[in-house]
Amino acid sequence: MHIAIVGCGQLSRMLALAGIPLGMKFSFLAGAGEDLSCVESLGSVVAHDQQSQPADIYAALGQPDVITVEKEQLDIELLTQLETYCTVHPSPAALRTTQDRLLEKQLLDQLGIAKANYSCCKSMREMLANTPPPLLLKSRKDGYDGKHQYRLDNRVDLQALEEQFQRESLAPENFIAEQLIAFDREVSQVSVRNASGDVAHYPLVENRHTHGILSQSIAPAADLSESLVKQAQRHITSIMTEIDYVGVMAMECFVVGDQLLVNELAPRVHNSGHWTQSGSATCQFENHLRAISGATLGSTTNYCVTAMINLIGTGKPEARKLPSHSRLHWYNKAVRPGRKLGHINITGHSTNDVIQQVQSLAYEPVLQES
Amino acid sequence: MHIAIVGCGQLSRMLALAGIPLGMKFSFLAGAGEDLSCVESLGSVVAHDQQSQPADIYAALGQPDVITVEKEQLDIELLTQLETYCTVHPSPAALRTTQDRLLEKQLLDQLGIAKANYSCCKSMREMLANTPPPLLLKSRKDGYDGKHQYRLDNRVDLQALEEQFQRESLAPENFIAEQLIAFDREVSQVSVRNASGDVAHYPLVENRHTHGILSQSIAPAADLSESLVKQAQRHITSIMTEIDYVGVMAMECFVVGDQLLVNELAPRVHNSGHWTQSGSATCQFENHLRAISGATLGSTTNYCVTAMINLIGTGKPEARKLPSHSRLHWYNKAVRPGRKLGHINITGHSTNDVIQQVQSLAYEPVLQES
Repeated sequence: MHIAIVGCGQLSRMLALAGIPLGMKFSFLAGAGEDLSCVESLGSVVAHDQQSQPADIYAALGQPDVITVEKEQLDIELLTQLETYCTVHPSPAALRTTQDRLLEKQLLDQLGIAKANYSCCKSMREMLANTPPPLLLKSRKDGYDGKHQYRLDNRVDLQALEEQFQRESLAPENFIAEQLIAFDREVSQVSVRNASGDVAHYPLVENRHTHGILSQSIAPAADLSESLVKQAQRHITSIMTEIDYVGVMAMECFVVGDQLLVNELAPRVHNSGHWTQSGSATCQFENHLRAISGATLGSTTNYCVTAMINLIGTGKPEARKLPSHSRLHWYNKAVRPGRKLGHINITGHSTNDVIQQVQSLAYEPVLQES
Repeated sequence: MHIAIVGCGQLSRMLALAGIPLGMKFSFLAGAGEDLSCVESLGSVVAHDQQSQPADIYAALGQPDVITVEKEQLDIELLTQLETYCTVHPSPAALRTTQDRLLEKQLLDQLGIAKANYSCCKSMREMLANTPPPLLLKSRKDGYDGKHQYRLDNRVDLQALEEQFQRESLAPENFIAEQLIAFDREVSQVSVRNASGDVAHYPLVENRHTHGILSQSIAPAADLSESLVKQAQRHITSIMTEIDYVGVMAMECFVVGDQLLVNELAPRVHNSGHWTQSGSATCQFENHLRAISGATLGSTTNYCVTAMINLIGTGKPEARKLPSHSRLHWYNKAVRPGRKLGHINITGHSTNDVIQQVQSLAYEPVLQES
């Protein structure tokens, strides 16, 4: 089984490392100027640009059995053309929906899934009329890790933001206005679906963000009501089924009381599923590969509590400084402030046990140049 | 951190796969004609023969920080010479002891560790006088997986065996005679020691052999007395400390009533520790790398019961036929009867749960040409 992955980042790296023990081979499709250090020596890398022909790309990738992706922002036309040569999972049609916040929100509307109020209009003033502040303006595309988001707390700030949009040549219709939610906590549901329609759910994980970047997850999220768990599983199942999604998907949500509000979907293995490498019978990377290769899904049973700490902007930690129940995953990238460079999974028999270990690590990310 | 491993088999493969996430680089030293398929693409491979100079080997390996090994039968002189260029763990001196059954038994004698009666003499008749049948004649070196072993049930068979030894030019003094033990079960203790002298123990694992080859392990072994656990941990700690051993060691034992009889030592990560990939906070491969690279040891806590099934002589199983709570580890080798080609780790909340899954798998190894 030969899998080609579009993208050469840490998700591709960890997919390959999960697939090699299964006897799979990998190749990677790199965009112009993409950093290749994460996938070094894990398979052949094929560079492409807008002039590359799909037939040549397919051949250069080594005629893979399946093509998959590690990111949202993709050339959907190219993927659609590659689909004539081999299976592409998730399908380009599903990726087209999830790469655009507006289409994604419309899908949630259609399925009756609760979320923050939103609007998308030609002018910012119209959006404000539909979605009163405080709100976030989020770019429809290319908006991961809190990028391309603008906060508007009140109408007084509107003029300044309109001027900024004009200065930076940003068109309001490429953004959605989303009501700012006073949530109790952020959780995500990571689930997997194969081509036969089987679905498996990991437990809900609680996430903490620092300046829009995921800094920490803990799974299972503590003190979950049965109702929240059911809402999460029902929502993601209906989403994946509706768009005939094959692979791992992450659904990021806000918890407000006993209600789950869906924030966004990630059509891929996700940072908030990295804990599964230590805490689950089958990790998200293996389950994605099982799903896209037509295999049965692996069990998502979890045997322990796991925390995931993102290593952001700091060098490789010394093994002697890590908690004993931890496993380091280092991505082989050059150190730069704000960059996700690795993560640590910490396991324990209880949430308290794990939180104590996290506290003893006292890790501080470096988000900006000092 | 650059680690070079002597050997290119599945243990080297799994060491590399455990070390890549830690940010380590690997190279491999291959003997003449050694199959390289297991380590394909995981690092550079350096071939050597008896004419190769240590300085050239060290340079060709890329000037590693540490050299380690994946097998017992090694050129100790070469390793001793390589020690002038970099750290070698376990040390050549420790490997000299554990690669020779006689030196190993003498070490156990010296430490007062219980084992089967044995003798080693110039003639078979002398050995029989010291160690009455039923017994096993085991070659002092090169005897893994039940190879080079001869069973003698009574004195009547002696002449036939003497004739066989003469025909095959085997010298009795290259063998030890070992009393055949009517044991209740076979277990092994896998432990790890770092250069600071810290020791961590995995739980005792119960093993089943088929024609001398390990076919199945289950960890933790069921119904263990506190006394057996203590004997195992005390024995392996005293062995590793005595020979200043650094890395993972496996100690195979017979259980007779409440006594542990040590059978043999393996100075490396071991097949009976493969279950740790699914069942432990830190797998044996990572802990070996942590030990030899001067790091603190990872936790050996186990969160579930795990069975390990060796795939011997059969092709890669289809994912759809594997139990849901299983992970496949395929070694990328050509299929041949009697050859260890991969393994499956199966996890569960209880021993019964795991045994049921093992039974449903109904796996049968192929040990010989049909």
